[in-house]
Amino acid sequence: MTSAPVGVDDTRKLEILQATWRLIAERGYHEVRVADIAKAVGTSTGTVHYHFPGKQDVLVEALRYCVEQAFTRQSEELRKLEDARERLLKLIELQLPRAGQVRDEWSVWIQFWAEAALRPELRPVHNDFYGRWRHAVVRIVERGITQGVFRAVDPDAFALHLSSLTDGLAIQVLTGSPQVSVTRMRDVLTDFLRDELFA
Amino acid sequence: MTSAPVGVDDTRKLEILQATWRLIAERGYHEVRVADIAKAVGTSTGTVHYHFPGKQDVLVEALRYCVEQAFTRQSEELRKLEDARERLLKLIELQLPRAGQVRDEWSVWIQFWAEAALRPELRPVHNDFYGRWRHAVVRIVERGITQGVFRAVDPDAFALHLSSLTDGLAIQVLTGSPQVSVTRMRDVLTDFLRDELFA
Repeated sequence: MTSAPVGVDDTRKLEILQATWRLIAERGYHEVRVADIAKAVGTSTGTVHYHFPGKQDVLVEALRYCVEQAFTRQSEELRKLEDARERLLKLIELQLPRAGQVRDEWSVWIQFWAEAALRPELRPVHNDFYGRWRHAVVRIVERGITQGVFRAVDPDAFALHLSSLTDGLAIQVLTGSPQVSVTRMRDVLTDFLRDELFA
Repeated sequence: MTSAPVGVDDTRKLEILQATWRLIAERGYHEVRVADIAKAVGTSTGTVHYHFPGKQDVLVEALRYCVEQAFTRQSEELRKLEDARERLLKLIELQLPRAGQVRDEWSVWIQFWAEAALRPELRPVHNDFYGRWRHAVVRIVERGITQGVFRAVDPDAFALHLSSLTDGLAIQVLTGSPQVSVTRMRDVLTDFLRDELFA
């Protein structure tokens, strides 16, 4: 393997990651075997092990991949919007767990929470990823205060409230709560912004 | 087994449940084997299988046991308080994920979310349990409005916001967020009550 050009290795690793995070999202971390990943990519279990020596490495890298993908996708969309109100409403829209990519990303997050609650060694990486989300909200809130379209709230406290509320509502959507559809989730979050943040 | 008096069977089942939910809370649902449960209770794997034919039955019953225990414990405490403000503040206090019993209960909830997101057959039971929590909050909010100590909010909408926020903050505590201690979680929740609910 050491003789393979770096580019080939990277391509293979990316293919493994793409297959892995979808498998985790659909079947669950504990149900995905290295053999399933190898089969999905059309490679050997040895190659999968080469890229991910331990099973926790697979979960950590799958979450990292989700986070990076979502960040890139969302940043591109958000940059188009000058107004902080529009930007924050758009962020909420992009994070709603509709069926497909975003719901699958939420599925990986929820599984990561369950693992990180049990295994302290996963917490630093979780908290790094999570800090990025919250910091993105903090920056939009600060921007809106500067623009005069938001009230002078504490950006950190507001971001914690909004991100915790978002997580709690997403759990209800993903567990099929009869009270919480994607539409209801959007309404609760946008009502919160209009009542507490928008000037 | 059919010859055993009902009382003996019930006692054994309760012992199995008590051991099982602690094992799930500490090690994780996927790491607990029927042999671990049998060993913890000092019985055979056959007896465990008799009470819980499938592994999902164990998880469902463990969550049910958590919910019933917490409900009984909390109801006794809450009944002592006439004032709806004190009652809601007490409910928050009793649900804070301090180390021990309550944190273990949260651990089981988080694992149940991860499973219910993946396995639709677990959702009705999750939503029943969840509906009980939310309904308890709705009743306290209605009581407070009648007593004149709460503003005339929509009790259902308020309960959804409060319970989702609580879940989202508990995730941060259980995943060891450097930003969210038990104390910070209490402050965020009580600030929310004072700003949005208390008259």
